[in-house]
Amino acid sequence: MFTKNNPHIGARPGTLAIPPHSPEPRIRVTQYSADDVEVFDVEDVSKLPALVKSDYVTWVDIQGFGNEAKLRGVAAAFRLHPIALENAVNVPQRAKAESYADHNLIIARSPVMGDDGDISVPQVCFIVGDGFLITFQERYLGFFDAVRERIQAGGGPMRTHGSDYLAYALIDAMVDRYYPIAQQLSDAIEDLEDWVVANPHPEVLTRIHTIRRQLVVLRRVGHPQREAINMMLRPQSPFFTEPVQVFVRDTRDHIAQIVELIDSSREMASDLADAYLSNVSHRSNEVMKVLTLMASIFIPLTFIAGVYGMNFEYIPELTSRMGYFVVWGIMIAITVFMVFFFRSRGWIGTSKPPPTDS
Amino acid sequence: MFTKNNPHIGARPGTLAIPPHSPEPRIRVTQYSADDVEVFDVEDVSKLPALVKSDYVTWVDIQGFGNEAKLRGVAAAFRLHPIALENAVNVPQRAKAESYADHNLIIARSPVMGDDGDISVPQVCFIVGDGFLITFQERYLGFFDAVRERIQAGGGPMRTHGSDYLAYALIDAMVDRYYPIAQQLSDAIEDLEDWVVANPHPEVLTRIHTIRRQLVVLRRVGHPQREAINMMLRPQSPFFTEPVQVFVRDTRDHIAQIVELIDSSREMASDLADAYLSNVSHRSNEVMKVLTLMASIFIPLTFIAGVYGMNFEYIPELTSRMGYFVVWGIMIAITVFMVFFFRSRGWIGTSKPPPTDS
Amino acid sequence: MFTKNNPHIGARPGTLAIPPHSPEPRIRVTQYSADDVEVFDVEDVSKLPALVKSDYVTWVDIQGFGNEAKLRGVAAAFRLHPIALENAVNVPQRAKAESYADHNLIIARSPVMGDDGDISVPQVCFIVGDGFLITFQERYLGFFDAVRERIQAGGGPMRTHGSDYLAYALIDAMVDRYYPIAQQLSDAIEDLEDWVVANPHPEVLTRIHTIRRQLVVLRRVGHPQREAINMMLRPQSPFFTEPVQVFVRDTRDHIAQIVELIDSSREMASDLADAYLSNVSHRSNEVMKVLTLMASIFIPLTFIAGVYGMNFEYIPELTSRMGYFVVWGIMIAITVFMVFFFRSRGWIGTSKPPPTDS
Amino acid sequence: MFTKNNPHIGARPGTLAIPPHSPEPRIRVTQYSADDVEVFDVEDVSKLPALVKSDYVTWVDIQGFGNEAKLRGVAAAFRLHPIALENAVNVPQRAKAESYADHNLIIARSPVMGDDGDISVPQVCFIVGDGFLITFQERYLGFFDAVRERIQAGGGPMRTHGSDYLAYALIDAMVDRYYPIAQQLSDAIEDLEDWVVANPHPEVLTRIHTIRRQLVVLRRVGHPQREAINMMLRPQSPFFTEPVQVFVRDTRDHIAQIVELIDSSREMASDLADAYLSNVSHRSNEVMKVLTLMASIFIPLTFIAGVYGMNFEYIPELTSRMGYFVVWGIMIAITVFMVFFFRSRGWIGTSKPPPTDS
Amino acid sequence: MFTKNNPHIGARPGTLAIPPHSPEPRIRVTQYSADDVEVFDVEDVSKLPALVKSDYVTWVDIQGFGNEAKLRGVAAAFRLHPIALENAVNVPQRAKAESYADHNLIIARSPVMGDDGDISVPQVCFIVGDGFLITFQERYLGFFDAVRERIQAGGGPMRTHGSDYLAYALIDAMVDRYYPIAQQLSDAIEDLEDWVVANPHPEVLTRIHTIRRQLVVLRRVGHPQREAINMMLRPQSPFFTEPVQVFVRDTRDHIAQIVELIDSSREMASDLADAYLSNVSHRSNEVMKVLTLMASIFIPLTFIAGVYGMNFEYIPELTSRMGYFVVWGIMIAITVFMVFFFRSRGWIGTSKPPPTDS
Repeated sequence: MFTKNNPHIGARPGTLAIPPHSPEPRIRVTQYSADDVEVFDVEDVSKLPALVKSDYVTWVDIQGFGNEAKLRGVAAAFRLHPIALENAVNVPQRAKAESYADHNLIIARSPVMGDDGDISVPQVCFIVGDGFLITFQERYLGFFDAVRERIQAGGGPMRTHGSDYLAYALIDAMVDRYYPIAQQLSDAIEDLEDWVVANPHPEVLTRIHTIRRQLVVLRRVGHPQREAINMMLRPQSPFFTEPVQVFVRDTRDHIAQIVELIDSSREMASDLADAYLSNVSHRSNEVMKVLTLMASIFIPLTFIAGVYGMNFEYIPELTSRMGYFVVWGIMIAITVFMVFFFRSRGWIGTSKPPPTDS
Repeated sequence: MFTKNNPHIGARPGTLAIPPHSPEPRIRVTQYSADDVEVFDVEDVSKLPALVKSDYVTWVDIQGFGNEAKLRGVAAAFRLHPIALENAVNVPQRAKAESYADHNLIIARSPVMGDDGDISVPQVCFIVGDGFLITFQERYLGFFDAVRERIQAGGGPMRTHGSDYLAYALIDAMVDRYYPIAQQLSDAIEDLEDWVVANPHPEVLTRIHTIRRQLVVLRRVGHPQREAINMMLRPQSPFFTEPVQVFVRDTRDHIAQIVELIDSSREMASDLADAYLSNVSHRSNEVMKVLTLMASIFIPLTFIAGVYGMNFEYIPELTSRMGYFVVWGIMIAITVFMVFFFRSRGWIGTSKPPPTDS
Repeated sequence: MFTKNNPHIGARPGTLAIPPHSPEPRIRVTQYSADDVEVFDVEDVSKLPALVKSDYVTWVDIQGFGNEAKLRGVAAAFRLHPIALENAVNVPQRAKAESYADHNLIIARSPVMGDDGDISVPQVCFIVGDGFLITFQERYLGFFDAVRERIQAGGGPMRTHGSDYLAYALIDAMVDRYYPIAQQLSDAIEDLEDWVVANPHPEVLTRIHTIRRQLVVLRRVGHPQREAINMMLRPQSPFFTEPVQVFVRDTRDHIAQIVELIDSSREMASDLADAYLSNVSHRSNEVMKVLTLMASIFIPLTFIAGVYGMNFEYIPELTSRMGYFVVWGIMIAITVFMVFFFRSRGWIGTSKPPPTDS
Repeated sequence: MFTKNNPHIGARPGTLAIPPHSPEPRIRVTQYSADDVEVFDVEDVSKLPALVKSDYVTWVDIQGFGNEAKLRGVAAAFRLHPIALENAVNVPQRAKAESYADHNLIIARSPVMGDDGDISVPQVCFIVGDGFLITFQERYLGFFDAVRERIQAGGGPMRTHGSDYLAYALIDAMVDRYYPIAQQLSDAIEDLEDWVVANPHPEVLTRIHTIRRQLVVLRRVGHPQREAINMMLRPQSPFFTEPVQVFVRDTRDHIAQIVELIDSSREMASDLADAYLSNVSHRSNEVMKVLTLMASIFIPLTFIAGVYGMNFEYIPELTSRMGYFVVWGIMIAITVFMVFFFRSRGWIGTSKPPPTDS
Repeated sequence: MFTKNNPHIGARPGTLAIPPHSPEPRIRVTQYSADDVEVFDVEDVSKLPALVKSDYVTWVDIQGFGNEAKLRGVAAAFRLHPIALENAVNVPQRAKAESYADHNLIIARSPVMGDDGDISVPQVCFIVGDGFLITFQERYLGFFDAVRERIQAGGGPMRTHGSDYLAYALIDAMVDRYYPIAQQLSDAIEDLEDWVVANPHPEVLTRIHTIRRQLVVLRRVGHPQREAINMMLRPQSPFFTEPVQVFVRDTRDHIAQIVELIDSSREMASDLADAYLSNVSHRSNEVMKVLTLMASIFIPLTFIAGVYGMNFEYIPELTSRMGYFVVWGIMIAITVFMVFFFRSRGWIGTSKPPPTDS
């Protein structure tokens, strides 16, 4: 799930490695001002720059990378830095924030849990320029529909802020997607708690292992995401205007809370695995004790029976009328002794649990 | 216990997710100057701003979130930033300190141990403005009664300082609540120490596991709390006036001490679990040794008895008059040899503990 | 051992929680200049400020907290910040350094090993002002006798420096107390090394566990102590004059060395516990192997003997004159086969250790 | 694989420790401007400085260290700092970036996986000066062929930038080599996942161990590499001109992503080893349970049979016509009791796994 | 090995704790300029300051601390800070760098592996002043002979730089001594790799444990050493002149590389211990399985044989002519069933290892 599409080693910086099976790009433009909003598709990328007009925010949303010429056309139209296009297309990159001469680049990644429980973490690349925002998605990911609807609905601060607020709103929508998955994994751990004590089935451990793997994945993308958002908030950073920074700080707190949830879930998963193993080991010891007791008591008795089963012609005890009963007496004495011995060692009988008030 | 009430993904920033079952807000106003103090309830939130007067500190304590219109009314009355209200209502947030144009926001969380031993960590949001303080509690939490009584009683520095001192006093009261719970968990670990050595009942491990889970919860909220209080003390921070900062530094030291207590308790719990497992494993080895000794000694003897229990018509030894006694002699010799062999390996007899002066 | 005397929750800042059984304060004043030195007790605290005179250093050493009025009297006499007195009396606080308007507060803690091996870490609070030093000890702790004697003896830099040098000298005396305890624990671990290999008695593990607990305690107080001393050395810090800072940097290096000794001792204790468990586990495996060998060899033989012990009227082999010897032959063949099988698996015979030159 | 060629202890700084078997140096010069490019070998090192001309970038690529005089000749020709030549030749050094008076030194290391799976990490030393770049390779490593071809092909930013861009391009080519190896190890871990659950062969653990060792090697060189690249990007750093820094920041993100991949692979390998051990331990417990059940049931029965196999002349039960059947009844009763007992303890029968929706 | 010679608690700062058995000091002076060099011993310490002359570097090397008066004489002659002498003599101190009014103090420590494999880490204290360098060694350690020879031989930058270069050269010679020991431990771990898999003798674990202890010691001194050298390179630091700093940065990289080698060796030792334990545990499980199989198959068979060995007068089966053969049939059927059962559980037969291409 970590596989990255890399250009061949030694390739020229800026070489694109289009992910296989990425569909033909659909270029969706959303253009709005305080009073006006329009959504339409564009085919001819050379016409894109002409669309940008003052007082309007122009959002160019590129869905699909299946046509290198078209992508390079967009890059040329907006004069993107060659590295910027590489970062947008050679997915997945580490979440990051980078500022170029006349536009900023932000890469955000959002986890998606597949039907098989596997977590993939597709990326979206944001290019924030003066009056425009370009987003690059490998394919239609569905992260942005709610925001587009809000733009069309109007109201709220969206329509009165610039392209930086739009970028914030989209990144915030992506960060929001971490929470339900982290929560689901955290809940799954809590659900397993009871099984660990009551019924230490090996399946429990397999589940814990699976959850831990998913948490490692989440953590691996969550930490750079937090870092990237922090970087956008540095005082000297030209990413966001002051009023939008207030909102971004809120997103930063969300991702921090998520990362902490992930980290404490990992700790709990670890503790739970330990508790499972201890429980299994305790049960195994109990089984062992029973074996030891049975064997230790009956092995000597069986030996005695064996002795008097021997066919020597001359075994004096065998002729004694009381012999059989004496032997039984000896056997019972041995058993009683063993039981007392084991009890004195604390191997028989239930030990007391600590008092509940502690 | 970690569940958070989140707006749906992609919701507009500022969307409120009122926690279910949160009661209708009660708005309690406490207003005081050096010479005067008044406590009363307010129903009509639009009248709140008019209450603020110079030389007075006006504390608006909102208990319960069950009425979105009323909450939005408070926010409008004090012109709160939209993100501020979201932070106050969408509980729980990470403990944090945020400064807006004309008010500061602080979120503090305080642990409460329920009757079932579960720890919940409700949050209170503080909005500190010029001459006023607004506190948002999900429901009546009881954290602030002692402070309100101190205000009414008068005396002390409270009545002569501004709303920042009041915020400090309330946050300090919340931080104080960490200590008894952290102490209780630390004591519980010490109580278990003796049981681990004397009576390694599996219940002990379950208890350690429970305590560790509670410590993870405490740590997860304690660390951001410390961070948030540190942030309030940064030189450039507008949160607190210089004289109040002296007091806040004291609170910072308290939370630092608590976090250290939590961390060392966690280490001790870890060590204790290891000690428990070692002890159980040692006991299990002892049981094993007994089994091995019994079996190793009697299995060959039983075999010998079995041999002379065979019904072959021609077994020369059986007819010898001394045969039976010779066989006993061999058996005793084998036993003596085995005992010596085991003793030479150190499997029989008690090993010496290290001298006590080490 | 971690219990702290806390005022009740919600108490006014500055509320004192006098530790129970703390004796009535004894107020010992040591006053010296380059040429003169005097040591005497003071009863009436209101006379204290008048004692301070220029060219003299006045050291007010308060031993015992059993009289709140007297403590508050001292605080009033020297116009201490209310938080300062709380920090001095509500023991134990975290080691820290705090600067107020016209005096500085330093809290230092020093470990004391009791006769039962438990480590307590009493605190001393230092108030360093212009020409005076106040020390608050819960009870007579005996940390400062050597320094007081050096003052009376004269000579050295003590008599020619101000109250900051005196504070340094006392804190240095307290930090010196960490070393012998840390060393003793480190030595105890080394002493246990040999027992772990030669004689893995369970008592060894209990001792390691005890040492680790003591190291956790030491570490928990040592780290804040180092932090506090670092804080006193910050460039903008008003705690110590430049010539005294040179000395304090030396103390800082001592505490750093101690903390490193504690940390590496903890690692060694961890390693040792692992080594112990491995050794026990190895011995247990050896025991297991013997059981397996004995049982695997004799169980089939016993079965064969059992077969020919059956009382069927018609068992053809029994009538054969060679039957008995043929059975013996089969048994010996089985035994030889088993021994070879086990030897081929490496379960019998001693494995070679790696060559000593590696 | 970590062995370093060090001069003898106490050697003069600047002493060279030529790696054994390093071939005679081949000095390959690539010289290009925007319009012109030439590649040729140089034998006489004293002619090298004369080659440097303005508007051209002169790249001197030294392959092989087998001739100290020649290396010293290069150093003299370009007036390299004595430490610089030591760093270039005494391989391997830690990846680093160092600036001298009139040239900068960068050491980069790139992993190469041998046919036996061992990872070696040869270094290349870059000396970046005004208009020239010198690279030192222990032997022909093949890292730079693609870049040299790009230079000859022309196009792209290479030909229009200075020697710093060339250094960037070569370092980027080296960093690119980390990814496939890190990816291969990460994939190998995922491939082992299934074997751990389905077929816990001990070979699995050996493989995990091998992968972890390789990850430790990768991490040991990857971390300093990241550090070194960060150092090149410090604001005050004279390493790269502003336009080239944009490209280097991209390389920095690549190495950061690689280091994160390595770290999460290490965590996964750890988790996998734990899962393997748990699985083995579970299977071993299952085997144990069967042994216990068989032994616990049959040992008492065998004892009973043994009792009535004794040859006492007077055993009343033996003469009873029903005796044999009564004994069978008792044996069956014991068996039934044991089975119920074990079932009540949960030792027989399959425990239910937790529901799949958790 | 960690024992430190400390003055008694509460001793005056500057009190010396001469290490026991330290020999009488030998004071060796090496004096050189660009053209001249002289090495001689000095007895009368009061004449030392007169030796210092401009254009010359005067190196006073003190070997042995067995005469407090002489040491104090040196300190007085060069007007050393009282703390400086304490740091030089009360060995071992933490590696550190400290600047006083007119001289700097540097403490460096170098590991020495004794014949018994124990690592001691003696310290040397450097006092760098204007035109002179004083080194304090507890006894003749032999670290500096190579450097002294280089001075006498002339050539290289040594004779043309000041006392700071000499200090650098000596510290560099000490840092060089870490590498062979760290390398030796790292090699020892690699050598043990093969034994762990092929022949898990308990001695292997003891060796790993010993190596880890040595690595803990190395790490404990290596980390402060790195810190100290970093401190010498801080921009505002007066320790070294700019041209010498270039050399010291090289030493800093060496110590950093060494610390990383130590840290990765520690990780490898940890992994190796885990691998050993897993291997032992796997072998023990194999032994266990054999026991279980033998016992599970033969115990029921022996029971059956026992039943027909009973001496009841009326056992109908015994009289049947086919009885004996029927019983054999039943026994064989049970055996076949058990073997199939165990095979179906995967307890018999060799499991397949994962394919080698993964």
